Amino acid sequence: MSKENEKLPEILSDAVLKASAPVPDSFVEVKGIDYSKPEAINMRATDLVASMRNMGFQASSVAEACEIINKMRKWRGKHKSELEEFKQTGEFDDQGYQKSTIFMGYTSNLISSGLRDTLRYLVQHKHVSAIVATAGGIEEDIIKCLAPTYMGDFALRGAKLREEGMNRIGNLLVPNDNYCKFEEWFVPILDQLLKEQTEAAEKLGKDCLDAGSPAVLTPSLLIDRLGKEINDESSVLYWAHKNKIPIFCPAITDGSIGDMLFFHTFKASPQQLRLDIVADIRKINSMSMSASHASMIILGGGLIKHHICNACLMRNGADEAVFINTGQEFDGSDAGARPDEAVSWGKIKAEAHTAKIYADVSVVFPLIVAATFASGIAP
Amino acid sequence: MSKENEKLPEILSDAVLKASAPVPDSFVEVKGIDYSKPEAINMRATDLVASMRNMGFQASSVAEACEIINKMRKWRGKHKSELEEFKQTGEFDDQGYQKSTIFMGYTSNLISSGLRDTLRYLVQHKHVSAIVATAGGIEEDIIKCLAPTYMGDFALRGAKLREEGMNRIGNLLVPNDNYCKFEEWFVPILDQLLKEQTEAAEKLGKDCLDAGSPAVLTPSLLIDRLGKEINDESSVLYWAHKNKIPIFCPAITDGSIGDMLFFHTFKASPQQLRLDIVADIRKINSMSMSASHASMIILGGGLIKHHICNACLMRNGADEAVFINTGQEFDGSDAGARPDEAVSWGKIKAEAHTAKIYADVSVVFPLIVAATFASGIAP
Amino acid sequence: MSKENEKLPEILSDAVLKASAPVPDSFVEVKGIDYSKPEAINMRATDLVASMRNMGFQASSVAEACEIINKMRKWRGKHKSELEEFKQTGEFDDQGYQKSTIFMGYTSNLISSGLRDTLRYLVQHKHVSAIVATAGGIEEDIIKCLAPTYMGDFALRGAKLREEGMNRIGNLLVPNDNYCKFEEWFVPILDQLLKEQTEAAEKLGKDCLDAGSPAVLTPSLLIDRLGKEINDESSVLYWAHKNKIPIFCPAITDGSIGDMLFFHTFKASPQQLRLDIVADIRKINSMSMSASHASMIILGGGLIKHHICNACLMRNGADEAVFINTGQEFDGSDAGARPDEAVSWGKIKAEAHTAKIYADVSVVFPLIVAATFASGIAP
Amino acid sequence: MSKENEKLPEILSDAVLKASAPVPDSFVEVKGIDYSKPEAINMRATDLVASMRNMGFQASSVAEACEIINKMRKWRGKHKSELEEFKQTGEFDDQGYQKSTIFMGYTSNLISSGLRDTLRYLVQHKHVSAIVATAGGIEEDIIKCLAPTYMGDFALRGAKLREEGMNRIGNLLVPNDNYCKFEEWFVPILDQLLKEQTEAAEKLGKDCLDAGSPAVLTPSLLIDRLGKEINDESSVLYWAHKNKIPIFCPAITDGSIGDMLFFHTFKASPQQLRLDIVADIRKINSMSMSASHASMIILGGGLIKHHICNACLMRNGADEAVFINTGQEFDGSDAGARPDEAVSWGKIKAEAHTAKIYADVSVVFPLIVAATFASGIAP
Repeated sequence: MSKENEKLPEILSDAVLKASAPVPDSFVEVKGIDYSKPEAINMRATDLVASMRNMGFQASSVAEACEIINKMRKWRGKHKSELEEFKQTGEFDDQGYQKSTIFMGYTSNLISSGLRDTLRYLVQHKHVSAIVATAGGIEEDIIKCLAPTYMGDFALRGAKLREEGMNRIGNLLVPNDNYCKFEEWFVPILDQLLKEQTEAAEKLGKDCLDAGSPAVLTPSLLIDRLGKEINDESSVLYWAHKNKIPIFCPAITDGSIGDMLFFHTFKASPQQLRLDIVADIRKINSMSMSASHASMIILGGGLIKHHICNACLMRNGADEAVFINTGQEFDGSDAGARPDEAVSWGKIKAEAHTAKIYADVSVVFPLIVAATFASGIAP
Repeated sequence: MSKENEKLPEILSDAVLKASAPVPDSFVEVKGIDYSKPEAINMRATDLVASMRNMGFQASSVAEACEIINKMRKWRGKHKSELEEFKQTGEFDDQGYQKSTIFMGYTSNLISSGLRDTLRYLVQHKHVSAIVATAGGIEEDIIKCLAPTYMGDFALRGAKLREEGMNRIGNLLVPNDNYCKFEEWFVPILDQLLKEQTEAAEKLGKDCLDAGSPAVLTPSLLIDRLGKEINDESSVLYWAHKNKIPIFCPAITDGSIGDMLFFHTFKASPQQLRLDIVADIRKINSMSMSASHASMIILGGGLIKHHICNACLMRNGADEAVFINTGQEFDGSDAGARPDEAVSWGKIKAEAHTAKIYADVSVVFPLIVAATFASGIAP
Repeated sequence: MSKENEKLPEILSDAVLKASAPVPDSFVEVKGIDYSKPEAINMRATDLVASMRNMGFQASSVAEACEIINKMRKWRGKHKSELEEFKQTGEFDDQGYQKSTIFMGYTSNLISSGLRDTLRYLVQHKHVSAIVATAGGIEEDIIKCLAPTYMGDFALRGAKLREEGMNRIGNLLVPNDNYCKFEEWFVPILDQLLKEQTEAAEKLGKDCLDAGSPAVLTPSLLIDRLGKEINDESSVLYWAHKNKIPIFCPAITDGSIGDMLFFHTFKASPQQLRLDIVADIRKINSMSMSASHASMIILGGGLIKHHICNACLMRNGADEAVFINTGQEFDGSDAGARPDEAVSWGKIKAEAHTAKIYADVSVVFPLIVAATFASGIAP
Repeated sequence: MSKENEKLPEILSDAVLKASAPVPDSFVEVKGIDYSKPEAINMRATDLVASMRNMGFQASSVAEACEIINKMRKWRGKHKSELEEFKQTGEFDDQGYQKSTIFMGYTSNLISSGLRDTLRYLVQHKHVSAIVATAGGIEEDIIKCLAPTYMGDFALRGAKLREEGMNRIGNLLVPNDNYCKFEEWFVPILDQLLKEQTEAAEKLGKDCLDAGSPAVLTPSLLIDRLGKEINDESSVLYWAHKNKIPIFCPAITDGSIGDMLFFHTFKASPQQLRLDIVADIRKINSMSMSASHASMIILGGGLIKHHICNACLMRNGADEAVFINTGQEFDGSDAGARPDEAVSWGKIKAEAHTAKIYADVSVVFPLIVAATFASGIAP
């Protein structure tokens, strides 16, 4: 306290000018971008992210998320040859070393947006091991191979758009004709799938419901088939099929695919195509159990977030987790829950490295991918 | 402008003291609570809500939501006797008049919270016609019949909670033992269901996958069975079973039920219980098509919101809609989309009466129910 | 674990069916409204709030906020006669017992909304001791005595509104003529205030800047004067003047009052009316220091929140605090900071009872007031 | 519609497969990053932002904000020599052409964070013309010259931090000793300022309150003095002083500076330093009126946002505006209001180019600055 203020009422000097404990050596100073450095001009993603590390608030979370993603990328366990045969499960790198099983989840709107190209990039280059999406995250990927989505505006009036057959997704527009094109593309596939189901049922009879029966289609098998049929390099599903990366979508009926399945029930009657979700829960949970190391990258909230976390409970928790969404915890929603809530459930390990970024995925994920998977730099 | 200010620079008087057009007669004055009235003491729900109508901001939305809900309750169409037989679909009141098919959606956390009693009240008294929920919204209802959920705190540390086997949901805690109790209750039911599936498959052989086959279980049928088995008046599922109100949950595997189904695959092998989601999409969409009038009450975001809206597309739009959640539109999420986005898709009619309340459901829905369904006043 | 599941892989039973520690006796069960009780029909505010206490999420926070407010209302210290004379500061009840100094803060938009009537009620009945507001929170109170504010819509287009001279505040509209009326009302008062300043300066000469000089106007003195001049029982300012409840507004120039002060500089030149903010910081901080017990009710974020908290640092922290706003902590804003952040600064006592409700004030504060100050029930 | 579905109920094909109007040529396709291009590796800010333009959601807003900022930077009006003398106001470039008056606002927390370096960069290189900040945005800049701020965590407990004298700002920590150092630095300046006030008052006597009187200090003059005294190139205030960029802070008493001014009243009594806010409202409004073109960059909400908008009303609206904050409009707060609300008030021109980014400033502003002011590329 300045000598000048010595006659202050004691309560004031005690309260306002209270001395602090010595700053521990471990403390890290808040710092921003050093604009005197040449790399501060038109910065590269890795430099920008590095500068955000000790900037505070969500900037720090972005940088931490990049560190965690680089950890996921870098992790290596034992060599296949060191493992007993029944332990040779999970993911391995080209040299035969165990690597992390990375579960990525995204909501439908991200596929509608230009982030689809980023998500496809990750799948194309096998940067992730499995995906969980919502129905729109499946069908919009296919539909974009058939016709484009357009830029719109959050404030366009719904009544006028409906008149014009323009469907709004935030500030994007999807002409309804795109769904008509999808219907034309999809109906023959549904016919073929029903035919295959029928043939298998005829062959297997009462055993057609058994585990592994070819008579029973699941959402992940349907999605794989769509990826095969679309045969388009711009597609996430195409690369997932190509690279044997399963895409899970337990509620695949909740969108245009569901509309078409519904329509198909009229045509197929008295037969009916079936989609079983028990086999898929076995499949995703088994992936989690057999992973030598497990990581999550979750873009958005709701089902896709919970489903990946729940799968990771089967291995007593993920080893790393990055959540990016705009959800808040105050309403008790799973969407808004922090990683630490998942720790209480055993869905994330207590010692895991985690980060949640409170942001629209579209403003941070392009930067994050540029500074990690697409940095051209080994993690 | 005051004469005194006549020498102001013109730009200032033009900009700041710009005259306004005459106020149209239709304009409604902003007003609050008149505390001089005796009913302003310890106000009743209906008085409070009426006072909020012209208060502005979300207070007005709460009042408008109550008006819309009263419209849903009040709507009556033709008498059954006036309708051709094939048009005698949808909901009817006790006198035989058409009434609105009310779809209610809620997220899992609401069942974990004390709102479960409010949701149960609505189902018990047949105030809604169909429900869409997420997996937790099913299993937590059953689990609460087996053991209680407790008050916690958003800031409790995950690692310590995991040690103690306490699962956190926002500021609530569910002891993991509750899930063990659920497993004990649920496994015999799964055994029985598998037995029934097997018997039906044996009986039907290759036709066991056909539409309406008793060999194929669906999420809504499973939920109905759970409601029957739990036989507990505190349960939403019990009353839904009793009152024949279907509960849809396409991703029912995404939670503890899914864990148990997964476990069951080990025991049942090579057999496997199956859950088909195609029959359920047919069921909910058919309800929408056959409704004479359709209304939505959507509590929360994500799947449950999209699923009800999508079903209402099958009838070219719902007639009324109330959305309550904390989602924002800026990230293009379906959770955050305003009713007007659903209008563009044909999921809500252009002329429908709609409201979105931006709030945690728990702070507004008790008041809304008190002022509508539980007001003791005919709408 | 069910015996049936004994052959599960160990990791699954360990992770998913982990036993929990015994539930402590102190744990409180989550519960909702008991609709079987007669008071559950068209519920009264106090019953509704009591039912929300163990509902979870923000419902619990609403109930807790009511408890805290009742604590503020109830707190009594020593009788004036027991206190040395220099300690006879702060607030006293009619019997001469110390009571809490309640600081209430609100943002401008709340006065624009129908909540003004609720805020006025609190001031009229001396339920609060001091107020901090932003500029709009002062001038809109006066302007509403001159002409009404109207209901609008969040989606009305700005360009069209500007043409019509309709200013939008969320879903409210204020005709620009209202500001013209305010100008006409305010200019003569400014003239008079300048005259008083000039006369005092002439009388005091070089001492006119000294502490307590009548030549120096402050925002709180100006506001008190406005309350006196408007002489209208619908006004917050009127009752604040009447009841000697100071209203602080350090940035009172940030709005229409500022526009008028700016205009007045043209007219008054070379003289200039002055508004000193140092005297007001002394005044509010002194109130805090001399309070025997201090409480905060903060409605909204930004300046009004920080200013009350900062004042309470002068007494080493408030004893109770209720924050209601929609701000989130993730961006490091003071608006979004939880009460616990203020504890770290000494602005709230470590042992204080606090609650933050994440909600638009308009949906919860009418209920909260109905269940506390306007419940007709002694706390 | 696929031929196969021709037997669908008509309502379904009408509703779900409704044809859309032809897509206008003006429609822009949604697109993301083309990862096949070499510049997609470790992307540079300008490339990243360009790729975000048609990505949708807030990514598009980030790109649009950069376009708007480049417009602000690029705008040039007439040459000084073409203008009548009384119109030679506002900002001019080095060649004598009119350029935009850029008002930048930021909240206190941004100075506490590492963004301070970015804000300082903008002031140092004269990229902005005037600043509006809150009190913490002034004092934390000075305090950081005296001692560092440290990285913390949102979840650190307030009671423990208070014991240690560590003040938390989101995930940052400021040792209370820093404020003690500030007090020691500031008290002598306050003494000097009081001396200057006294001398001027003695000299001017009753005229000491007149417009332009050196006896009357204002927040902007005090801030300029602090910038001069701190004399430290890391400081925003230093460069603002150096570059004659005024910083406005009408509520400068709302923080540590206010604490010190309060303390100083004890010492100075019966004299008192005064801070007049009328002169500052004249100063900022005059800047706005005399600007040939006006632009806003507003980082955060509350006072700083309203104050700049209100100043721009004095010229019948700003020509460009970029808002970045996490506020939402649903609660009617000014913080959350979209630019279009300001259009209704005449604070932004109807034809202005505007963008609001819904994001924590810290995750987007470093990228935006890197892609604009610090891109090394002329706009």
